[in-house]
Amino acid sequence: MSSQEKFSINPLNNKKYKLPSVNDDVIGIDSFLEKNKGKKVVVVQGLGFVGSVMSIVCANALKDDYAVIGIDLASEDSYWKIASINEGIFPVISSDQKVAKYYEEAKEKGNLYATFDPYAFSKADVIIVDINLDVSKNDHHINQNSPLTFDVNLENFKSAIKSIGKNCQESALILIETTVPPGSTKIAQNIIQDCLQERDLGTSKIRIGHSYERVMPGPNYIDSIQNFYRVYSGVDDESADSVERFLRTIISTDEYPLTRLKSTNSTEMSKVLENSYRAMNIAFIVEWSRYAEESGVDLYEVVNAIRMRPTHKNIMYPGIGVGGYCLTKDPLLASWSRQKIMDGNEALHFSEKAVLTNDRMPLDAYKFLRKHFIEPIKDKNIFMLGVSYGPDIGDTRYSPVQLLCELLIKDSANLFFHDPYVKYWTELHSDVEQDFNKLDRKTDIVIISTGHSFYIDNIDLINTLNELEDLFILDTIGILSDLEIKKLSKKHKVKILGRGDI
Amino acid sequence: MSSQEKFSINPLNNKKYKLPSVNDDVIGIDSFLEKNKGKKVVVVQGLGFVGSVMSIVCANALKDDYAVIGIDLASEDSYWKIASINEGIFPVISSDQKVAKYYEEAKEKGNLYATFDPYAFSKADVIIVDINLDVSKNDHHINQNSPLTFDVNLENFKSAIKSIGKNCQESALILIETTVPPGSTKIAQNIIQDCLQERDLGTSKIRIGHSYERVMPGPNYIDSIQNFYRVYSGVDDESADSVERFLRTIISTDEYPLTRLKSTNSTEMSKVLENSYRAMNIAFIVEWSRYAEESGVDLYEVVNAIRMRPTHKNIMYPGIGVGGYCLTKDPLLASWSRQKIMDGNEALHFSEKAVLTNDRMPLDAYKFLRKHFIEPIKDKNIFMLGVSYGPDIGDTRYSPVQLLCELLIKDSANLFFHDPYVKYWTELHSDVEQDFNKLDRKTDIVIISTGHSFYIDNIDLINTLNELEDLFILDTIGILSDLEIKKLSKKHKVKILGRGDI
Repeated sequence: MSSQEKFSINPLNNKKYKLPSVNDDVIGIDSFLEKNKGKKVVVVQGLGFVGSVMSIVCANALKDDYAVIGIDLASEDSYWKIASINEGIFPVISSDQKVAKYYEEAKEKGNLYATFDPYAFSKADVIIVDINLDVSKNDHHINQNSPLTFDVNLENFKSAIKSIGKNCQESALILIETTVPPGSTKIAQNIIQDCLQERDLGTSKIRIGHSYERVMPGPNYIDSIQNFYRVYSGVDDESADSVERFLRTIISTDEYPLTRLKSTNSTEMSKVLENSYRAMNIAFIVEWSRYAEESGVDLYEVVNAIRMRPTHKNIMYPGIGVGGYCLTKDPLLASWSRQKIMDGNEALHFSEKAVLTNDRMPLDAYKFLRKHFIEPIKDKNIFMLGVSYGPDIGDTRYSPVQLLCELLIKDSANLFFHDPYVKYWTELHSDVEQDFNKLDRKTDIVIISTGHSFYIDNIDLINTLNELEDLFILDTIGILSDLEIKKLSKKHKVKILGRGDI
Repeated sequence: MSSQEKFSINPLNNKKYKLPSVNDDVIGIDSFLEKNKGKKVVVVQGLGFVGSVMSIVCANALKDDYAVIGIDLASEDSYWKIASINEGIFPVISSDQKVAKYYEEAKEKGNLYATFDPYAFSKADVIIVDINLDVSKNDHHINQNSPLTFDVNLENFKSAIKSIGKNCQESALILIETTVPPGSTKIAQNIIQDCLQERDLGTSKIRIGHSYERVMPGPNYIDSIQNFYRVYSGVDDESADSVERFLRTIISTDEYPLTRLKSTNSTEMSKVLENSYRAMNIAFIVEWSRYAEESGVDLYEVVNAIRMRPTHKNIMYPGIGVGGYCLTKDPLLASWSRQKIMDGNEALHFSEKAVLTNDRMPLDAYKFLRKHFIEPIKDKNIFMLGVSYGPDIGDTRYSPVQLLCELLIKDSANLFFHDPYVKYWTELHSDVEQDFNKLDRKTDIVIISTGHSFYIDNIDLINTLNELEDLFILDTIGILSDLEIKKLSKKHKVKILGRGDI
């Protein structure tokens, strides 16, 4: 065994896969397609949270029978997904039972295969691009006085597109679903055309479009693709028609009509605008949360009162922060595109400020704690209720709880974590409790940090807390009811973020 | 006749009223109440766009029979409203037929009277405060590089409250409806208590509350008071109970349940927050409008696509600006309160920035025009379609069209105005056309500046435009359809704000 041997590890079950020693998978692909003869071939590029689920949606298309090949890199980060899919274990665990069901059905039909070999593109009628496109932010912007600077690197995206262009048929449909800086599909079009020309192929038959998914990991994972509104476009009318025909085979378009926009710039902008809008609405309420705390106002009841108006239904509640992959970066993709692709020479100031404000929200929660818990934090035992980035999700990536914890760890506090959906917190290298056993007499501070429905009206939790004495309880989500607050306040000091003493 | 004699002029019919020479109206008030013996007395302070309509809603209460007295100042600005109400002419013209109907019914019942004499407060069971509370902004903030500075002066509000405190019964209910900087009702409470003590009266029976209206002038003027959700509070439980009992007599609370909040700070904040939220959503889309123009994107179709999502229904369209009395100042009332009443020492930055951005929107429209109409504007004939501040409203106060016109006048353009709802534009001292006669061969530029439904799908308008040659047509509202744009583009240059060439 050479010391250079590399592995890719499945974080779900710690299974180790040796990276493939050969560069091609022609035999694997050909024999899969032999078994699926006569079927149109869909290749999904990228097997992350969107691509892997998109693969099984295509394998279970409503109106066609596709042979589906998922493709990702044979890298330490990604190869386990390829191996896992081919071994019979789906690489995404979901509370949506349809995910397992769709994967099982694909296995039964034998119309799903995964590979690392771009040779797959040469067999594709439809190629769906579902790779990641990240934003790198400087870390210091979390401090009140550092500005947010960030960068977008299109190189990975461009080389993924090049890999398609070097292999695809001249009549393929290339559908980009990745959230990209507006203007990117046109950049991809140029790359594809250059590649085809280098291969002495014509560029008139190729069709290129953009259509973004609105995937919501959680109990409606599959439905958020199959039963939801879709926006799409093409670089020309033939491309748009082609995208439409394809989407009609995988989405319930009778119930959720498709929306065609006039250009790929438009659909790309639509995606980042809708996430920026949401990020902005979250950021907007942050300063009002502080203002409410100063004014002895319960901002939760105020927001509830305002939400009675149909035109104001989407106003947000106070909270600990914004997590997940999209809202934390999409406004920046847009601002970058305006300056670097569209030559607007201006940032999207509101949208950038929204990201900055949201990134700092856990710092606000920390300051609120330090203001009201006046003792030093050093050596205090703090029990955190919830570590994942959102309610009823078992995903800790980009969780706002992380920054709050890092600040407390810097103060030398002892942290204990509880989460009904998480057993091990990868980012903090920590075990996570599934019961309240460590919420005991040694506990000084309890922080409700994720809005899992498990914590709402949880009598066990309230009883456990009330068996203890003199805790400082901080609810950063506003899930404690007025009655619970009253009950807890008899023995403990209870503070709610976004809510002043009345 | 002394040269000092002063008049108050009704701007609706130019009728002149001599200001009253005596200081009191005891006889008028007493004889009105004599005719309404046994009825509870409601006094409405302030006869503007809210107070005057509130008066007739109270005079036509759903569950009680009130004697209603409207009170305002015997000043040049306000006295005509008092005289007009007592003469049989309602001081507000509305497209809502219920306004005229309710006023006629009050006249028939004889339970509505108007006065300037604070003696009325001494007879009141309920006093409703509906006076204005303005923000004074510096004018220079419209220029790109000047910051927004502003001031709030509570003195008028305080002296209005003092006038109540000096006269009211010790058991009256005082209900503040004015949009105030949060904290103001508590300030009013102190003033009232001081006044009662000075009058050697007890302070235990007085009840003071806050409940904001959500008046929408227009076709649902009355319903926006009588048939809509209400938020209320009191300075103590008795006060809140009392407010609730009163509101139940004038509002359809079965269909539109009341929402009680825990403190007057909360309801005050609720009002300014809901308007700030709206102002913010408008401001948010401004930079995206510019970005769309730069990217060849039609932002209208993008917003329509995003609005398919129930969680994104309230995302705004591009536009010429924000008008009306509330959205242009309420966020500033909040920011001022945070700094000056709540000692937050911090502005509400997002909310202030929203007002600044919105105030500058007509400047964006002007720049867009100057970018695409490359000839000098001097001596050009410009025909403006719409001068009022919003669609289907005949009100020109705080109209964003005004700033755009002022910029064009500064460039020595010749302006012509059209508006189906406005005959004379007070702020610009200009006549307003009701037909397209002056839209003729001499016209160089046509600007659609208000989104009246009259302009939508108006074949006459399109035909009139297409009889002319080589116009520059600027649609600042996005009301032209794609088909109309296509038609007009054959003869004219057509540009849409928030929409790039595709």
